[in-house]
Amino acid sequence: MWQLLQFPLCPFSRKVRLVMAEKGVPAELVRENPWERRDEFVDLNPAGETPVLVETERNIVLIGSQPIAEYFEETVEKTPMIHGDAAQRAEIRRLTEWFDEKLFREVVEPLMVERMRKRLVSKESPDTRVLRDAMRVGNNHLDYLDYLLDHRRWLAGAALSLADFTAAAHLSVIDYLGAVDWRGHKQTKDWYSVMKSRPAFRPLLGERMEVIVPPQHYDKVDF
Amino acid sequence: MWQLLQFPLCPFSRKVRLVMAEKGVPAELVRENPWERRDEFVDLNPAGETPVLVETERNIVLIGSQPIAEYFEETVEKTPMIHGDAAQRAEIRRLTEWFDEKLFREVVEPLMVERMRKRLVSKESPDTRVLRDAMRVGNNHLDYLDYLLDHRRWLAGAALSLADFTAAAHLSVIDYLGAVDWRGHKQTKDWYSVMKSRPAFRPLLGERMEVIVPPQHYDKVDF
Ligand SMILES: N[C@@H](CCC(=O)N[C@@H](CS)C(=O)NCC(=O)O)C(=O)O
Ligand SMILES: N[C@@H](CCC(=O)N[C@@H](CS)C(=O)NCC(=O)O)C(=O)O
Repeated sequence: MWQLLQFPLCPFSRKVRLVMAEKGVPAELVRENPWERRDEFVDLNPAGETPVLVETERNIVLIGSQPIAEYFEETVEKTPMIHGDAAQRAEIRRLTEWFDEKLFREVVEPLMVERMRKRLVSKESPDTRVLRDAMRVGNNHLDYLDYLLDHRRWLAGAALSLADFTAAAHLSVIDYLGAVDWRGHKQTKDWYSVMKSRPAFRPLLGERMEVIVPPQHYDKVDF
Repeated sequence: MWQLLQFPLCPFSRKVRLVMAEKGVPAELVRENPWERRDEFVDLNPAGETPVLVETERNIVLIGSQPIAEYFEETVEKTPMIHGDAAQRAEIRRLTEWFDEKLFREVVEPLMVERMRKRLVSKESPDTRVLRDAMRVGNNHLDYLDYLLDHRRWLAGAALSLADFTAAAHLSVIDYLGAVDWRGHKQTKDWYSVMKSRPAFRPLLGERMEVIVPPQHYDKVDF
């Protein structure tokens, strides 16, 4: 049985949980607070980052959401996520990286620091300027999603792909933190509502972090 | 014929050039200065980043070094780079991402800004504190490479892989900028010397940027 060392509001952990649930691979969740830099955790992953996936019996350690997603794409046929011809697969990987890199660094990470980390760890109050900037840039990212969904059924093309699960994982974290203004983003809102209604998404939406309470609409499919 | 929109001292462009050369796929190089944010370039890649690979006849646009590397891994058998069983492939992808993310952000990017961008674009003088920090962290990264090479023949295991080409691409950029102190890194130095001697590497080492001159040892296999 796989053990997933993960943090509930880590978008990369959520991406892996969605991939494994969609592929029907069970995992035992083990809570890891990456900022504690636990010795045994850093021994497993020198980057000290969640997610890490471990299978003790077969002595397998998989690190990082994209290597893990590619691993299950290669080993489990159910729910293909990086599909189509090679050019289509490149488009899926481009968008997945866009969310994991740009959306995370410009929007999700600063919001996690200001609204969660400071609350849980350093007990500082959030920097309102950083919050405002992150939400403004987040709004531009939602515009880009709207634009993609104006031209395509799913984010990377005609079929549901890893790009959709990745975007939804990141959005679910900032939505939990009350930092998404859905007004004016009908296309993305409709798409996210469909994502939320997938069985793989339900456990994520049902989970609550200590101290931090999500907005009312967070776990509603109609919001 | 593929057209590669690239920048000579961009490590991701170099990674793609190495992959294509190793796989025997010819490409016409088109110089792109990403900071100019040329309209036609941003239309191709909304991130405005090099590298972008275009095949006009078949109407293919590939964006980003990792999607491009995976594309050629899937379509060209020669010189497999993401090989072995699924766990081994995850390790290759983990390390490739380590170099593209951590090494780039902490070391290569600040050095490019201070030693190249400020010189070519803004005509400011470099910030010595940023330079010193980047070189100190770069030294830690070389320690990590030494450690890997103490345990493995190549960076990700027993066989040459995309992780080696990626690391070499990034190192070649900071070495051009005179920012690598090779003393005390015998394992990495020996490994890099072998990488440099590969035919695919020669065109990169022969190329010169305007204004910026690399150190004497830059293109020497014995250095
Ligand atoms: N590229 C990695 C990124 C993982 C990552 O950045 N994880 C964050 C949490 S969301 C982390 O552990 N950061 C270190 C820390 O918080 O100290 C992946 O895709 O898994
Ligand atoms: N994840 C991308 C990163 C590409 C990247 O960051 N390219 C840099 C140049 S090395 C860039 O174009 N930056 C934008 C700029 O310089 O304005 C890849 O792997 O290709």
